[in-house]
Parts: sequence; structure tokens; C-alpha cells
Amino acid sequence: MNRKELFELIRKKKSFLCVGLDSDISKIPPHLLEYSDPVYEFNKGIIDATIDLAIAYKPNMAFYECRGIRGWNTLEKTITYLKTFKNDIFTIADAKRGDIGNTSSLYAQTFLSDKDGMLNFDAVTVAPYMGSDSVKPFLTYENKFVVLLGLTSNEGSNDFQMLDIKGEGQKLYEQVIKISSQWGHADNMMYVVGATKATMLKEIRHIIPEHFLLIPGVGAQGGSLDDVVKNGINKQCGLIVNASRSIIFASKGVDFDKAARHEAHILQKEMEKHLFAHNLL
Amino acid sequence: MNRKELFELIRKKKSFLCVGLDSDISKIPPHLLEYSDPVYEFNKGIIDATIDLAIAYKPNMAFYECRGIRGWNTLEKTITYLKTFKNDIFTIADAKRGDIGNTSSLYAQTFLSDKDGMLNFDAVTVAPYMGSDSVKPFLTYENKFVVLLGLTSNEGSNDFQMLDIKGEGQKLYEQVIKISSQWGHADNMMYVVGATKATMLKEIRHIIPEHFLLIPGVGAQGGSLDDVVKNGINKQCGLIVNASRSIIFASKGVDFDKAARHEAHILQKEMEKHLFAHNLL
Repeated sequence: MNRKELFELIRKKKSFLCVGLDSDISKIPPHLLEYSDPVYEFNKGIIDATIDLAIAYKPNMAFYECRGIRGWNTLEKTITYLKTFKNDIFTIADAKRGDIGNTSSLYAQTFLSDKDGMLNFDAVTVAPYMGSDSVKPFLTYENKFVVLLGLTSNEGSNDFQMLDIKGEGQKLYEQVIKISSQWGHADNMMYVVGATKATMLKEIRHIIPEHFLLIPGVGAQGGSLDDVVKNGINKQCGLIVNASRSIIFASKGVDFDKAARHEAHILQKEMEKHLFAHNLL
Repeated sequence: MNRKELFELIRKKKSFLCVGLDSDISKIPPHLLEYSDPVYEFNKGIIDATIDLAIAYKPNMAFYECRGIRGWNTLEKTITYLKTFKNDIFTIADAKRGDIGNTSSLYAQTFLSDKDGMLNFDAVTVAPYMGSDSVKPFLTYENKFVVLLGLTSNEGSNDFQMLDIKGEGQKLYEQVIKISSQWGHADNMMYVVGATKATMLKEIRHIIPEHFLLIPGVGAQGGSLDDVVKNGINKQCGLIVNASRSIIFASKGVDFDKAARHEAHILQKEMEKHLFAHNLL
């Protein structure tokens, strides 16, 4: 999916919601444990209940890897199911990978290639610390996106991302965004910017006015959607706001899908208002 | 394995060599493709041929993930085989993971836990960009190690790791090592420092005199073992020098294991000289 199609999807669904499939088997409704693949049943339930409200789904690899081969199998089935919705959905592998060039090429292939046996996501999250040759292999796939970590939503983001860089009057996260944005463009790169740091979005928008931003931290982590929109929205919306736990674990009962839909609907309605207020509908 | 045992292993084998199992199926000897699991046969051949010369093995996850369930199965079989050597070997998962706290906890469990179904490596590489809460969950496993990316061996390491931090007179990689070393200690943390940056090892040793360093970049990437030892060795050796491609792909023929042993032996002999010269044998 390209950037224009993503914007059309946002307009069509009146939403820029991404549902994070952080599908921890110890937190899913107990009645699903009777199925041969409980996490897949859970994911399918969540997807079916929210497909008209969400534009994107983002499985976080940690929750699949921790179950080994079974987890990888669940992941493959989940992306295969998501792909049946074709361009009605944008898919993000939350993997935060990054390695020397020849190794990053393999990670890129794993997550982005449409060849047989590869996962064929539309986007993958990548960590920037190792620099250009660790990121560029992910930029070679047409109509696919690197989502590079910029300013993350967690407390630890203060440790290094907020360090002042000498002579530049900028913090590390700003330098990371500024330098890395030259490796690609708004049609193959996005950035992770935590909702808990929404006031810094305005500065980030000076550096990258056009890029889409993936915003975690609304919901369980306490970020505000209003602040995110106020500081981050652009002419093509430019925002994908992720919520994971607050949606997918809204209920542990047999009504988990309905409860998830209810939470997703609240966010979608707010998003619709914001899109309307910014003349994007 | 704890740090003392690791040093004893180094003394016993007269080596601080780590063999990187970057076992790309497109590069292994063609005759192995007849086996049901060619990469496992390859790994087993390499391990058997080098077990008395190497103190550590380091599978890089990218080469297993890119083959999906089959790759994960190969990885599980490989670590299971490595574990049959018990304390005669140190195992490192080269995963370069890192995420917000609750997610990093799952990655830590996947790679370090000895519970059924988990991979039970002795160490795992971790990326520092997301800060303390992305690293600390890996530090909770007894006699296990985080190997944090400090200064990497690739060209892209110049992009961010070498940025000057204001007011500190230090570069980012030095700040990363300085700050993160306070989250743990030499008995549960190591650092990746590329052999291609060996002259900076001296400065790094001022910050962390005791920690073990995992040194990639000798061999295919062009780093010098002499420079690494001169600038980085400490009283417990403190070095694990990795070579991957130069050993495991020394031959594409049926003699691949012998050729790997030959390359490993050259490095082990050099290492033995260095250990002797520094009164560590």
C-alpha cells in the first residue's frame, strides 16, 4: 500500500486507528484456550470486531516469538488472514529489528517480501542505533514502509533519546529523524513518536512535515489523542494512532470482541471528529 | 554460566573465539541440501569441527527467522545441541531486541529462560535506543548476560553512535556505555564493540574495565585481532572475539567442516599467544 492509498483508507473509514495485536496468551479470555490455536482465534475475533473501525493492525513479534514454533505459526496465520482484506487494511510488523547491512537485508525480506514463505507486511518497525546500512535494506521494497523509532513512549526514552547533541541545538531523537529522513522519503519511511511526548510533535513536524507517524501510548500508557492531533496532524492526516491493551484486553469474557469493538469505536468517533475539524473528510 | 566460569573456559580452551552461526541457507555447501534440515546439519558440522577451539557460538536470529517455522525449528535444534555441551560452551542469541518494559520481558523470557519451550541461551544481544526499561528485564536472569550494543562494527555506526554529546566531552556510544553500565554490573552485562573500531577500545576500557566485550568484525569485516587485544584485554581476558563468515563459509565443499576448523585453529593459535603474553594461562 502506498501513502496515497493509506490516506484514502483513512478517509473511507474515518479513522486513523491501529490495533496492536499484543496477544499475550496469559491475558486472553480463558474460553479460547480450548481451541487448537487460542491466540489466532483471539486475533481473528479482534480483527473481525474492529475491521471497519481500524485502518491498521500491528502484531508485536515478542508475543509470538515467546511461543516458539507455535507462536510463529500463529503469526503466519494472522498475517494471512489480514491479507484477505487486501487494501482495506495496513499491516505493521512491530519487530524493532536492525543489524549490519547483510543481516538487515534478511530481516527486511522476512517481514516485507511478498515471496512465498515471507510475511509480506506493509511496514516493519526498525531501531536506528546501528545507522544507515542497518536501515536502508528495508527501504528497497516498493510500496512498503520502514517505521523507524524516533521518540518512544516509554520512560527509558529519556535515557538516550533526549541527550543534547553538541553544536546542533537538538536532541538525539531529532538528529535521528533529521539524518535518517535523508535515507528515504515520506513514501517509504514513517517514524514512531510516542503519544506521551505529544508536545514534542510540533518540533518533529518542522523536520518531517509530510511523513506518517506511528503513535503508540494512547490508552494504557496514558497519552492524549487531542494533544497528538493538535501537534501532529498534516494534510494527509499523517497519523496512525495505536492502541493495544486498552482495546484487545477490554474484557476477558466471551464478549471480548464486543468489548474491543466498543473501545475501538470510542477512539474512531474521536478520530472522525478530528478529521472533520481539519477538513480531511 | 557466570563470569568466573567463562574465564575458566577461556583458560581451558586457550581461546576466546566465538563462532557466529550466520547460517545462510543460500551459502551452505550444496550437498547438505539433501538433508531434511540442511541448516541444522551445517551447524552441527561446524560445531563438531570447532568445539575444542571455540568458547562460544552465536546464532544470528535473522538467518533463522527468514525461514519462518522451519528456521525457528532449526534454531531450537541448534541450541538444544549446543546445550548438550553444558558448561563447555557459552551461547549467545544475536537478536538485537529491545522494546518497552512489558514487551522486553517477553523477549528476555524467550531467549534466556530455562523453562520448557524457551531457548535458554546464556546471553542475548540488545539494542539500547529505548533506554533503561527496555534493557532491565533482560538483567533479571541469574548467570545470564545482556550484550548491549555499544559501538558497532558497521559503517552506519558513524551516523549516531559517534555524535558528540553536549557538555560531556563524550560521544553517544560512550554515554550509552556509561549510563547503561549503572543498570547492571560486569556479572550480567557485556557490550558489543566492533573490531573495526579497536583504537576506541582503550577509552571504553576506562569506562568499563571489568566487563566482557563481544567483538565482531574480525575476519570478513576487516578488524585486527592484535589491535583488539592490545586495547581491550583485561585480567579475566574480557574479550569474546566473534568470526562468522570467515570460518563457517571457508569452503562450500564436502570439506566445509575441516575448512572451518582450519580457520578457527588459526585464530585460536593467535589467541593462545595473546593469553600467554598477558599471563592469563
